Amino acid sequence: MIRLVIVEPEGSYNVGFISRLAKNFLVDELYIVNPHCDLEEAKRFSAKGIEYLERAKIVNSFDEAIKDVDLKIATSSIADNRGDILRKSIRPWELPKLIEGKRIALIFGRESVGLTREEIAKSDLLLFIPGNPEYPVLNLSHAVGIVLYEIWKSKGENRPTVSS
Amino acid sequence: MIRLVIVEPEGSYNVGFISRLAKNFLVDELYIVNPHCDLEEAKRFSAKGIEYLERAKIVNSFDEAIKDVDLKIATSSIADNRGDILRKSIRPWELPKLIEGKRIALIFGRESVGLTREEIAKSDLLLFIPGNPEYPVLNLSHAVGIVLYEIWKSKGENRPTVSS
Ligand SMILES: Nc1ncnc2c1ncn2[C@@H]1O[C@H](CSCC[C@H](N)C(=O)O)[C@@H](O)[C@H]1O
Ligand SMILES: Nc1ncnc2c1ncn2[C@@H]1O[C@H](CSCC[C@H](N)C(=O)O)[C@@H](O)[C@H]1O
Ligand SMILES: Nc1ncnc2c1ncn2[C@@H]1O[C@H](CSCC[C@H](N)C(=O)O)[C@@H](O)[C@H]1O
Repeated sequence: MIRLVIVEPEGSYNVGFISRLAKNFLVDELYIVNPHCDLEEAKRFSAKGIEYLERAKIVNSFDEAIKDVDLKIATSSIADNRGDILRKSIRPWELPKLIEGKRIALIFGRESVGLTREEIAKSDLLLFIPGNPEYPVLNLSHAVGIVLYEIWKSKGENRPTVSS
Repeated sequence: MIRLVIVEPEGSYNVGFISRLAKNFLVDELYIVNPHCDLEEAKRFSAKGIEYLERAKIVNSFDEAIKDVDLKIATSSIADNRGDILRKSIRPWELPKLIEGKRIALIFGRESVGLTREEIAKSDLLLFIPGNPEYPVLNLSHAVGIVLYEIWKSKGENRPTVSS
């Protein structure tokens, strides 16, 4: 079971795109903590993922959003090379074996300031998507897309390549 | 050498996000064929990728954009399971071995109608990102992000995971 948790998103386009991605990669649940943007406006960007947006669970607190899961995976654009390591840091391709058979929450932070130290401390793992060391900071919904793609891949629901 | 080719993009936010992704994953060249959107507006979404947008090569024709590369890789949200196969279809994780040491163009289509049959016919390979069989159609810039991430991963520029 995969729950996508978006914490205080600021851009309605990101919420729309994330709803679309939820449908593209068949997420089970979408939780939005305390949205700081217009969810009506988000629909414009959700395409056929609009049903996810309409069924999204809007909650007031981080704690509510991470209830009832086995494994809480926070994400950060900062790799853990700064000494103050709160959580074991993992890369996207390590996810499949870690989440097998579990109810998980994939947690994404605010466009402006990411997740707080407190939110990361409440999580079990911290995931970093590697990129240009000088600028690995992805836009929120693009980070979501990469993580969901990596999980989808591992499910083997991919048709074999047809050669012509 | 990786050239990103965006054909007649319609959404300025997509052009902005793609410029940001070009910087996140250190693309070498960004070509935009006949943009159908406002490139000034795109800057709002490019964050620190704005330099890629400012240096982007704006060309008038598809042919100009695919000049001087060894391998042209078109992308499509339609997997080749319908009989009319023009090109060998590949999946993102097959890219690394196919592109090693080559000058490649990664070609992405219009939000509304994708690439034309003619444009696909001019390419060497057709790449499909697997997803929900009922709705594998990603937003343009999210497709770009996943492909660039998969290539970046293979370059081994990823720092090893640090355990705490
Ligand atoms: N390279 C990366 N790896 C993992 N998550 C990333 C990422 N880039 C962006 N994200 C996700 O996108 C969210 C918004 S980006 C937040 C950036 C902010 N300036 C900061 O200081 O943290 C992040 O909270 C994270 O959930
Ligand atoms: N699953 C997927 N695999 C590969 N490329 C994809 C993709 N989903 C979207 N894209 C890229 O995003 C572009 C815009 S999506 C185009 C969808 C359009 N409705 C159509 O009929 O084709 C596509 O041209 C392709 O470059
Ligand atoms: N290898 C292939 N796989 C799937 N469709 C192909 C194909 N080669 C050609 N076609 C045909 O070419 C047509 C135009 S290609 C359009 C691709 C799509 N709009 C996209 O970019 O997402 C398709 O509708 C399909 O019928």
